[in-house]
Amino acid sequence: MSDTTRIPPCSAHAIELEAGDELVVIDPEGQQVSDLTAFSREDVREYLSSGRSIDYASRMFLTTGDLLYSNRSRPMFEIVEDTCGRHDFTLTPCSKDTFSIIYGETEGRPGCEGNLAEALAPHGIEVDDIPIAFNVFMHVDVDSASGVIRVLPPKSGPGDFVRLRALMPLIVGMTACSAGQSNNFRYKPIDYRIIRAAEADA
Amino acid sequence: MSDTTRIPPCSAHAIELEAGDELVVIDPEGQQVSDLTAFSREDVREYLSSGRSIDYASRMFLTTGDLLYSNRSRPMFEIVEDTCGRHDFTLTPCSKDTFSIIYGETEGRPGCEGNLAEALAPHGIEVDDIPIAFNVFMHVDVDSASGVIRVLPPKSGPGDFVRLRALMPLIVGMTACSAGQSNNFRYKPIDYRIIRAAEADA
Repeated sequence: MSDTTRIPPCSAHAIELEAGDELVVIDPEGQQVSDLTAFSREDVREYLSSGRSIDYASRMFLTTGDLLYSNRSRPMFEIVEDTCGRHDFTLTPCSKDTFSIIYGETEGRPGCEGNLAEALAPHGIEVDDIPIAFNVFMHVDVDSASGVIRVLPPKSGPGDFVRLRALMPLIVGMTACSAGQSNNFRYKPIDYRIIRAAEADA
Repeated sequence: MSDTTRIPPCSAHAIELEAGDELVVIDPEGQQVSDLTAFSREDVREYLSSGRSIDYASRMFLTTGDLLYSNRSRPMFEIVEDTCGRHDFTLTPCSKDTFSIIYGETEGRPGCEGNLAEALAPHGIEVDDIPIAFNVFMHVDVDSASGVIRVLPPKSGPGDFVRLRALMPLIVGMTACSAGQSNNFRYKPIDYRIIRAAEADA
């Protein structure tokens, strides 16, 4: 197993996985969100698709045993372990414009979108290519009647994690989220570990 | 006002709008869905974004008065009239793979995704560019606790419509939906009218 790597608050990392590798996304302090997005290394126009994944699971909230599909309807990940159980897959990564429109902020912080774009640029992925993310640990309440959504503090406590098995060669971007609503206005780090398939088989 | 144009069952049309033009999407027989997607004519990498629109409205179900945003957080449409009141903005257009995975179909029907790709190809838009659609009249029930979704017959009756005002020059693709669950397994046409801004001002 690799060492644990830390994503500092309000930033993003990009990594590469082979089919069979496992990625463990960890909330080290509790109540923090990681926006995770993935692209096929064979063709970055194939990306992790919320709409396909929700449709095929017939469920908005995905957890252990669920598959995360690409826009081309191919499984990209299986969720093999999930100690939190509540994540969001409906909202786009926060951005400079999100902060302006929702929070009235004027500082121009890049947000998860800007941080993902910077981390993914060396892989040929541009800001317009960043879709709705799998927002690990993000807690979005939905009212069935009105459709009103509320972004609540994550249900994750210190050490909660999600373990994802890659089902194809992937480029993965993930953040320590920059949006106050998502993490109860306490911007924290996110940790991750990679378990390489070769090592797991050994 | 333009004549009414009919989209035959299980097919798609693409149109161009100027800023200020209005598009009326009509369910002529009731209980039919139209998957609608839009792209900026200035740069087709700017597209109608469910994640941005839901985030900024803080509501899953959008209706009269709501804005539909692009991935670049610019308003593309305003919903100016809506006689149905229930639409979906979470699922991707049905496709050959959807029919295989969800329904076990083997005929290889193109679905809304394939039909949109064919209609939008002359505008330089490819199948990988087709995002989650604004699924007009689609009725997706969401259980708040479990997140389980159910695709129910649309609430639209004969003649129900949505009137959208374009807020930038747009290419719009829209379908008469090919997925049985979406239209109670009775594949029907969709109608639309365009009200040009110049005409509305006259």
